[in-house]
Amino acid sequence: MTFQTELDPIATLVEQRLDALLAEGENAGTSNALAQAMRYAVLGGGKRLRPYLLIQSAKLFGVDERGALDAACALECVHCYSLVHDDLPAMDDDAVRRGRPTVHVAFDEATGILVGDSLLTLAFEIMSGERVDQDTAIRVELISLLARAAGWHGMALGQALDLDAERNDLTSEEVAAMQALKTGALFGFACEAGAVLGRADASKRAALKDYASALGQAFQLADDLLDAEGSAEAVGKAVAKDAGRGKATLVGLLGVDAAKARLAALVVEAEAALAPFGARAITLVATAQFAVSRKR
Amino acid sequence: MTFQTELDPIATLVEQRLDALLAEGENAGTSNALAQAMRYAVLGGGKRLRPYLLIQSAKLFGVDERGALDAACALECVHCYSLVHDDLPAMDDDAVRRGRPTVHVAFDEATGILVGDSLLTLAFEIMSGERVDQDTAIRVELISLLARAAGWHGMALGQALDLDAERNDLTSEEVAAMQALKTGALFGFACEAGAVLGRADASKRAALKDYASALGQAFQLADDLLDAEGSAEAVGKAVAKDAGRGKATLVGLLGVDAAKARLAALVVEAEAALAPFGARAITLVATAQFAVSRKR
Repeated sequence: MTFQTELDPIATLVEQRLDALLAEGENAGTSNALAQAMRYAVLGGGKRLRPYLLIQSAKLFGVDERGALDAACALECVHCYSLVHDDLPAMDDDAVRRGRPTVHVAFDEATGILVGDSLLTLAFEIMSGERVDQDTAIRVELISLLARAAGWHGMALGQALDLDAERNDLTSEEVAAMQALKTGALFGFACEAGAVLGRADASKRAALKDYASALGQAFQLADDLLDAEGSAEAVGKAVAKDAGRGKATLVGLLGVDAAKARLAALVVEAEAALAPFGARAITLVATAQFAVSRKR
Repeated sequence: MTFQTELDPIATLVEQRLDALLAEGENAGTSNALAQAMRYAVLGGGKRLRPYLLIQSAKLFGVDERGALDAACALECVHCYSLVHDDLPAMDDDAVRRGRPTVHVAFDEATGILVGDSLLTLAFEIMSGERVDQDTAIRVELISLLARAAGWHGMALGQALDLDAERNDLTSEEVAAMQALKTGALFGFACEAGAVLGRADASKRAALKDYASALGQAFQLADDLLDAEGSAEAVGKAVAKDAGRGKATLVGLLGVDAAKARLAALVVEAEAALAPFGARAITLVATAQFAVSRKR
């Protein structure tokens, strides 16, 4: 088993369901520029890593992949919204994403803002639906967790702190705390949501959160290493941007070698957190190992 | 009884609860620029008309104002997010709102984007909370309705169509349809949410939606009339902007006199929809009458 052979079919399933969810809207009479731009933003490839984590976490507790699919798609909508808004000129000002023009470049800036707003809202529309789970208490819990992970104490705060980091010097601890919000919060939600769907007990849920925390840090560190060392062609988006704009990254603060050592330690930490699940967690272990080896 | 003497105490209650909800975040360790800008965006006055409609609709079914308060605050967060994003340079590019600099002027554009994102997310966080209603099925229904009203088939679509209207000539029917989404959808949610909290039957719920539809159109028309006729000082924001940017409004398409006649007819329609509630709906009748008489 390789990570990619596990990821691919689930990514396809997620892509198909997102396509259907976005088509439902069009059938309802919204065949307009906004809906088209939303499709462009969501269906343009992407690893579908967060949905994968959610689905694999739920599987640990016997929930099959279709049973976790809508919750996974809601999460992916939040991730896609954050990319569209982060790419805006007033934010990171990126023109290329996944090897294609970003939404505000392909359409216009107002559309970029509205696409992000609409995808964020759609995430909660999807999460309120019966297909997520028959039990309304479970749906409410997922909505509450998703809002906290995405909002002013989670991902959005991380993005605000990241923008501040362009103006202020941060310590490596401050950068790590910022990244735990910006990237880690949605990773944490992915794994915790799987546990919620699977009616996991508190200790299993905590173990998955620990795993997600280490994994999120590992992915961010790998991303920074790709930015520092990769080529734009291989990575699919502009690279060496962080240093160019004086943005604090752990790679910049620690150096490449220390960053690589830290990345390896985080993968060990992520794997250790999965111990309570034994061999059943093999796909999540492989995900952590992928973090070190990925080239884009 | 005047409308204002009914509105003021409820507006104060909403303001205080929003203040507390936003302070909870700060106490939780988020005393940062993002949280401060969110406070600036939400606590800067505002009529609190949508929360008022929600609370008064719920009252028709015996839900007291504190019982509907958190749902009302969630709705107001969505309204405030939409104002912050609509004011952005890429959208309506407004520098003044409620007589003060808009968020992206008082802070910066990135903060404006993130404040809107965070307020939209906070709305769903609040709506998932126990204080909205003990019954999770009711909370899920409110979340679903709010997401539909605010998102890609509701308010956000209306805003997208409004931006298109600067480039394309719209008929008066198309303008009315656009405004039904942009303004009407949240008015509709306000009244329907009151019915949901009050466990209203289908016919009462439909009556309130009819009322909200007419009221929303009336408010938008009154807003356009203020823009065409009012002074910036009295209205508290820039006026005569619509004509200046060639934006289609019903006032521009129908003329001031016909628009005023339509406004009066909408108020009659709104009042007629309230017939099933008899004298208990007096506060909602007064709200409709306020739409005609308001000066800002």
